[in-house]
Amino acid sequence: MEHGSEILLSLFVIFVAAQVGAEIAQRLKMPGVVGEIAAGCAIGPSLLGWIHPAEALDVLAEIGVVLLLFSVGLETRLDEMKRVGRSALFVGMLGVIIPFVLGSLWAHGSGFDWAKSLFVAAAFVATSAGITARVLQELGVMQREESRVILGAAVIDDILAMLLLGVVTAMQTGESLQLGKIVIILCEAVGFVAVIALLGTRVMRRRSHWLEVPVNPLSPLTLALALCLGLAYLSTQFGLAAIIGAFLAGMIASETRQRETLEHQTQPLLALLTPFFFVMTGSKIELAQLADAGTLLTLALITVIAIVSKLLGGFLGALALGRRGALIVGVGMVPRGEVGVVIASLGLAAGVFSAHLYALIVAMSLLTSIVTPPMLAALFREKAADA
Amino acid sequence: MEHGSEILLSLFVIFVAAQVGAEIAQRLKMPGVVGEIAAGCAIGPSLLGWIHPAEALDVLAEIGVVLLLFSVGLETRLDEMKRVGRSALFVGMLGVIIPFVLGSLWAHGSGFDWAKSLFVAAAFVATSAGITARVLQELGVMQREESRVILGAAVIDDILAMLLLGVVTAMQTGESLQLGKIVIILCEAVGFVAVIALLGTRVMRRRSHWLEVPVNPLSPLTLALALCLGLAYLSTQFGLAAIIGAFLAGMIASETRQRETLEHQTQPLLALLTPFFFVMTGSKIELAQLADAGTLLTLALITVIAIVSKLLGGFLGALALGRRGALIVGVGMVPRGEVGVVIASLGLAAGVFSAHLYALIVAMSLLTSIVTPPMLAALFREKAADA
Repeated sequence: MEHGSEILLSLFVIFVAAQVGAEIAQRLKMPGVVGEIAAGCAIGPSLLGWIHPAEALDVLAEIGVVLLLFSVGLETRLDEMKRVGRSALFVGMLGVIIPFVLGSLWAHGSGFDWAKSLFVAAAFVATSAGITARVLQELGVMQREESRVILGAAVIDDILAMLLLGVVTAMQTGESLQLGKIVIILCEAVGFVAVIALLGTRVMRRRSHWLEVPVNPLSPLTLALALCLGLAYLSTQFGLAAIIGAFLAGMIASETRQRETLEHQTQPLLALLTPFFFVMTGSKIELAQLADAGTLLTLALITVIAIVSKLLGGFLGALALGRRGALIVGVGMVPRGEVGVVIASLGLAAGVFSAHLYALIVAMSLLTSIVTPPMLAALFREKAADA
Repeated sequence: MEHGSEILLSLFVIFVAAQVGAEIAQRLKMPGVVGEIAAGCAIGPSLLGWIHPAEALDVLAEIGVVLLLFSVGLETRLDEMKRVGRSALFVGMLGVIIPFVLGSLWAHGSGFDWAKSLFVAAAFVATSAGITARVLQELGVMQREESRVILGAAVIDDILAMLLLGVVTAMQTGESLQLGKIVIILCEAVGFVAVIALLGTRVMRRRSHWLEVPVNPLSPLTLALALCLGLAYLSTQFGLAAIIGAFLAGMIASETRQRETLEHQTQPLLALLTPFFFVMTGSKIELAQLADAGTLLTLALITVIAIVSKLLGGFLGALALGRRGALIVGVGMVPRGEVGVVIASLGLAAGVFSAHLYALIVAMSLLTSIVTPPMLAALFREKAADA
């Protein structure tokens, strides 16, 4: 009973902190998500210590971001994604290659051997689709071409980052790299995405009425949520992030005639659950590890490398959208968020990262997530003013 | 990463099992909740073993039932509750006394000493408001007088059961019973409920516009959810169940002018989260412990005692509503659900219950929860046909 009430207190504190953080950020003309991450940092172990790591909170955070990407998928049509496929592919690829090269150069320059440097560089690579997706939703620009490119590129980015992580992990133990195996993993992941996207949309378009077969009057929603959870799980079985599956589930559900109802009904779910994701992300930062001038300088350096390399990759990949559009895409790809945190945790577990490097990479991931939303908002506003 | 995907699989399995169970139950003209509990029993450790106990799943279940009682509160006005206060008080009191007396007589007759018998009897006492509330919602009869009496009685029941549990727990260790202390605990609990109900409704009625002060367009919902989580936590600090606080939060939120929007927006939250509560409740049963004729006979006996004693208490307490109305109230109080499971767990931890008795009490609690919904549905339908 005691334990149950402790968790209830954590839920209350996290939820209220998120609301307060978002409110302050929005009053300061910044995206609410920045306030939620900052609130997580404030109430987390390294400052106020009001919340502590707990599996249940991480699960709620995971459900929150899964639902967020599901709702983003609901606003995305496959046909529109296809139209930007070429740009998305370039952005995804250059957005992986440039940060990986610059990241490994920095790591090697700081004294790591090449094998370890490549692992460190992997933490510079993966974009967190959650942060950008939330900002795009807040700004109401999900229907813009730049948004499509960012989302498509995020899927490609996740596939490439997963492969890269597999390769650099194998290198740590000196395993021989089997090209054939990598190709198979790549084909499985691409195949999973393609089959779900193509077959799923076709089935959904023709069989919308299936969603209304059950007695439950809310069955369009419950079946869509079951699809979301199922594909989220399935995508982890192909080595991809759960949010990729959730995004695909939303995208194919957007082909049904119940799409608008689903969009509407997803809003309360996001209101309750996504704050847990952003607050928990913010709570992972360890300020004590960063409390000296040398470390802060290093942090500034790697954050600049992370931002510039990803921005450059995205910008070059999206030049077909014009310079302003390419800049928006580049900025949109910058946040590393929880993905950087996860890779840093793997590095810590594998003995590649020291506690100090871990704290640096986590802080870098969160900094990229906090600086991006205001930049993105400003760029979209500027573009709207021009138009 | 692996662990994360395991939890996603559990979420998917639980959610889908609940939908399938509810669908089958409803096609058989039974309330969906019966199917959800049965589904939990089927996929739980004692049959298919598809899900395993995990803290995160229990937390989701808790959030589910908290939101359920919040939404029930939203459909409840304080003024209407006051009108049935007298009946609710009688039902709550007799519904505690009669099961407690009969339960302790059975336990003493089965060979327990009096101190232990009273602890066993405590597991016969507390009603699970969650089960009945869900049935009342499914039937669309929340506005009926009988429903109000049941909900009011459930609050009183919880206060009395909490006191009783405190007393019998103290008796196990031979602590001297301090009447003064019991009176203080009682006053605190009653005071908490009264202050929240009376003061809260007054503030809400006059200050609805506060819910729209934040920038967030969904702020009426997010502030109401914050209130729900906060009062759920606070009520545990007064020794009461979290759902009592959630119910009070809903009841005071029902005084706002945003009430209908809130009711509407709560539906998707219930659709996602309450299945976890009912499936997890069903999964607690341990069929292996019950697999002999003698045990099944005992189970049948204690289930009959549990049903008849509670029904009688509720019926006698609610006679002012006429015989049919009193019968509905009596049946509505019967489910013990997760409350019986919690008390059985405490008894197991305190060394009062054997694993065998634990399994019996859990099975009894779930049986009372499974037989009630169809009876309640039949009684309400019959009454509607008469009217």
